[in-house]
Amino acid sequence: MKYSNIPVAQSIIGHCKVNGINNVIISPGSRNAPLTLTFTNDSFFECYSIVDERCAAFFALGMAQNLRRPVVLVCTSGSALLNYYPAIAEAYYSEIPLVVISADRPSYKIDIGDGQTIRQDHVYDRHIGYSANLRQDLSHSTEKIRRYRPTWVDSVDLEEGQGIVQAFNQDELNKALSIAIQNNLPVHINVPFEEPLYGVEEVELELPVAVRPRQEIVVDSLMDFVEIWNNAERKIILVGVNHPDSVAQDILDAIGNDSSVIVFTETTSNLHHDHFFNSIDSILAPIELSKEKESLFKDLRPELLITIGGHVVSKKIKAFLREYSPDHHWHVGPTHANDTFFCLSKHFKVSPNEFFERMYSPSKGGSSNYFQKWNTVRQKYRNLREDYLGQIPYSDFLVFDHILKSVPKKYQLHLANSSTIRYTQLFELDSSLKVFCNRGTSGIDGSTSTALGASIHNESPTVLITGDLSFFYDSNALWNNYMRSDFRIILINNGGGGIFRILPGRKDSEMYERFFETTHGLNALDLCKMFHIDYSTAKDGKSLQKVLKDFYKTADFPRLLEVQTPRLLNNKILTDYFHFIS
Amino acid sequence: MKYSNIPVAQSIIGHCKVNGINNVIISPGSRNAPLTLTFTNDSFFECYSIVDERCAAFFALGMAQNLRRPVVLVCTSGSALLNYYPAIAEAYYSEIPLVVISADRPSYKIDIGDGQTIRQDHVYDRHIGYSANLRQDLSHSTEKIRRYRPTWVDSVDLEEGQGIVQAFNQDELNKALSIAIQNNLPVHINVPFEEPLYGVEEVELELPVAVRPRQEIVVDSLMDFVEIWNNAERKIILVGVNHPDSVAQDILDAIGNDSSVIVFTETTSNLHHDHFFNSIDSILAPIELSKEKESLFKDLRPELLITIGGHVVSKKIKAFLREYSPDHHWHVGPTHANDTFFCLSKHFKVSPNEFFERMYSPSKGGSSNYFQKWNTVRQKYRNLREDYLGQIPYSDFLVFDHILKSVPKKYQLHLANSSTIRYTQLFELDSSLKVFCNRGTSGIDGSTSTALGASIHNESPTVLITGDLSFFYDSNALWNNYMRSDFRIILINNGGGGIFRILPGRKDSEMYERFFETTHGLNALDLCKMFHIDYSTAKDGKSLQKVLKDFYKTADFPRLLEVQTPRLLNNKILTDYFHFIS
Repeated sequence: MKYSNIPVAQSIIGHCKVNGINNVIISPGSRNAPLTLTFTNDSFFECYSIVDERCAAFFALGMAQNLRRPVVLVCTSGSALLNYYPAIAEAYYSEIPLVVISADRPSYKIDIGDGQTIRQDHVYDRHIGYSANLRQDLSHSTEKIRRYRPTWVDSVDLEEGQGIVQAFNQDELNKALSIAIQNNLPVHINVPFEEPLYGVEEVELELPVAVRPRQEIVVDSLMDFVEIWNNAERKIILVGVNHPDSVAQDILDAIGNDSSVIVFTETTSNLHHDHFFNSIDSILAPIELSKEKESLFKDLRPELLITIGGHVVSKKIKAFLREYSPDHHWHVGPTHANDTFFCLSKHFKVSPNEFFERMYSPSKGGSSNYFQKWNTVRQKYRNLREDYLGQIPYSDFLVFDHILKSVPKKYQLHLANSSTIRYTQLFELDSSLKVFCNRGTSGIDGSTSTALGASIHNESPTVLITGDLSFFYDSNALWNNYMRSDFRIILINNGGGGIFRILPGRKDSEMYERFFETTHGLNALDLCKMFHIDYSTAKDGKSLQKVLKDFYKTADFPRLLEVQTPRLLNNKILTDYFHFIS
Repeated sequence: MKYSNIPVAQSIIGHCKVNGINNVIISPGSRNAPLTLTFTNDSFFECYSIVDERCAAFFALGMAQNLRRPVVLVCTSGSALLNYYPAIAEAYYSEIPLVVISADRPSYKIDIGDGQTIRQDHVYDRHIGYSANLRQDLSHSTEKIRRYRPTWVDSVDLEEGQGIVQAFNQDELNKALSIAIQNNLPVHINVPFEEPLYGVEEVELELPVAVRPRQEIVVDSLMDFVEIWNNAERKIILVGVNHPDSVAQDILDAIGNDSSVIVFTETTSNLHHDHFFNSIDSILAPIELSKEKESLFKDLRPELLITIGGHVVSKKIKAFLREYSPDHHWHVGPTHANDTFFCLSKHFKVSPNEFFERMYSPSKGGSSNYFQKWNTVRQKYRNLREDYLGQIPYSDFLVFDHILKSVPKKYQLHLANSSTIRYTQLFELDSSLKVFCNRGTSGIDGSTSTALGASIHNESPTVLITGDLSFFYDSNALWNNYMRSDFRIILINNGGGGIFRILPGRKDSEMYERFFETTHGLNALDLCKMFHIDYSTAKDGKSLQKVLKDFYKTADFPRLLEVQTPRLLNNKILTDYFHFIS
């Protein structure tokens, strides 16, 4: 196979190949030519070209999230890699493995005024699993090396030096990929290249040893904990962001039928059972508004809190559990445990399956009225929500109900941050949907790119629901040659950052509209024309229902539906909802 | 005046005010509400609202470059501030003062799974003048403080603690702004805010002491150096990126009329004299192609090289001066000196005015044929360039000639990176133009936003010339409510990254077009519609001349001219040019 004649480029490709990392997102440049040539010449790799590195990185993030294995990003030197940073922070907190490979200039060219040259090494150190700073090959471009050779090479001959460099690079590559594969974290590989950059040669690639998958730590003695579990008559299991199909059905059944357990799930938990509570805020908001607030919260307070999955969306549950601390908070999961409620007492570094199997087998089926009591409350708000929907005018609230009901079974559903995810949390979703949202940093910066990346290899089609600020922020996501014709975007355009109307503070000034809500008169029609996306729009319930009828049907092009909602009305209808169900 | 009731927000505004820093670019968010409320309520400040933080930061960069004083950026917590990073790196290497203020959560909320929360402190440490990590006020939200108070507060009472916090914050603010003002560098102020965020109070602001402006270091004994200067019969003065009007006319005349000096200026040098050589590549390319290359380069090699200004664009001059090292390389300038040619022997930390005044007064007027000899060469390529322009077909080369001649006198001219700046270097520009390009990192990521920011306070109108990749990369720049109706954009659309056709490597494959050139079929028509910009297009010399005739005239809206050029032909015409003038 023809590869770049630069040894480190061949090492990189070897490490990716042996570890089955075959998706590569490349942004254009010259310094990264050795990598571009090498990846694109080997048909083992599926390469994607995306110009805007911010979009490229979120696209890779979505793809890695969907595939549940590392995806490679390749960029040139200079500010290019800084544009990756928002997605890298998201990957770091969401535990999604990205392998960022940035081409760099040789070290003697840094900080001497050369173009497209910054301090690339360690640039992501605040949010990265590992920073591998590879060394420059000595066998390549030896004339320049003789002139500018690093001081450590003085004590050895060039051949010996090259051996040292190569061993060092192999070792660093192995470390970086181990962390990406075993810890699901983004890693950064910075690699200096000397000119000439475009040489290729025919070689048989020598493959290094593959990284071992993560070993589950088996927890042997759970006896002390089983007792706490058995004695707790009020247990809450709170599920954050979680991959679909990650917990076995018999476990879900056991938990769901345990009368001492309430399971709070969120839209992004991807866990379903009839007895689970999937709209946390609809339970908590009425309590917050109630005169008997304190006694109700005390009734709800769990003795034992178990968290699984990643970040939790609901602010209300965080406030509740911080104020009414459980006696014990255990986190169950193989990687990181967050002390979200300031009372974490134990981290079980195992999968939820492993944990609950052991918890349930020796435990006796106690009896408790915990579930039953709150299930009555749940039934009440479900009924009231239906009543409320029957009487409110056209608004974000009503639109979300219509849209969420319209999504076909088994679709992958991506949600943008801010209003979109918060509204969606208030409704029941079909359990066959797989739901994602960038909750690692909860940014509005890359939702469209993420959804696109996640759609590429997914069996079923993908629909993104997004607000207007998120959508226009990431408009370059649409500059993408890989959009499937079954990709769908529903843009809820309320003319600005509607979420700010929900927050406290005065909302009646021009200053408020300009600097908080950032109102605008934009719509997506022209962008859709530019990027060949079928566009339709709805401005009321009737036109919305009409468009939705055909929206998911097979089409030649991807489709976007822009739903325009009344900016000033939305907030009141949302606030009133919580009063109505109280 | 009504300000946020949070003490640190008032301290920040006080420090900005006393130092005359009155331009503030705000991106929307909730955590930064105390800052937004405070800045927008005080009419001393001119506040701008820009949603996409990447664009906001480049906009601020352009404005600070134009005003030559610091501009403030304000954003919310989470990934928002990571989107600033590309512009911050550019500001760092271009020595442009930005004051980045990021609102943060209280420290006990970091890394425990809260939304929009990352490790904000020290996040730019690889490319920042100073990172001030302010402390949270203790007087605000005392209930929470009592619960989560930092350990150091345990030993003091709250009032004493608040005094310590306030003194610390004042000190850090002073340090940060000193570095921004005295060293022209970007600085980062990270400030944690506890809820409630929206409270305001009526206060009389106490102003701190202003930062002293930078003191010029006076160099007393130059005698040794004057001798080197006088003895050198071949001196090159190479000017990098440089602010207009930064060198006095009598100095320019003295240098220009010194027969032992060749002054090489670039498009971005903003220094003009009839005797200056303003197209470095047109001198060097013919030598590179000549059979007598070596003896010609030896003739050109300076004994003394003096650099002033920032980064140098021309790759050819870098290659030449690295290979044919001068005996001495002095850099003259008050801030940083780059060892661009690996032979820097002296850094004079003074302004060029100060330096040359002292160099010229005691020096004797020597005689040298250095200038005269190379002036003949200069005259030759000037004539040949005119001949060449007369015979080539419609292409990037011809288009640049037409466009550059069309720009009205005194305009501010912004150039995007890659092809745009490189083509422009080949032509003579009217000396009344003020020319800028982001050469700190030479990225394609924010040229439009930078030009827009620079246009806001500029006396004369601004025109941006950009390539297609740069333009579409920064398309969110157009999402901006502050575009002046006299703002002009000339987009040269050759359907991809034309610069890659100039670089080595095979160019005949689909792989090349997709991953290097990244060809596309986009045009700017729909974007212009979306953002209310007058659009016109040209596809040949005749239509180009026609559109240019009225292009700069007063209009109700900003205007964009899209010039479409033949993707495959451009490269050959450029390469042939260098042969033609040889």
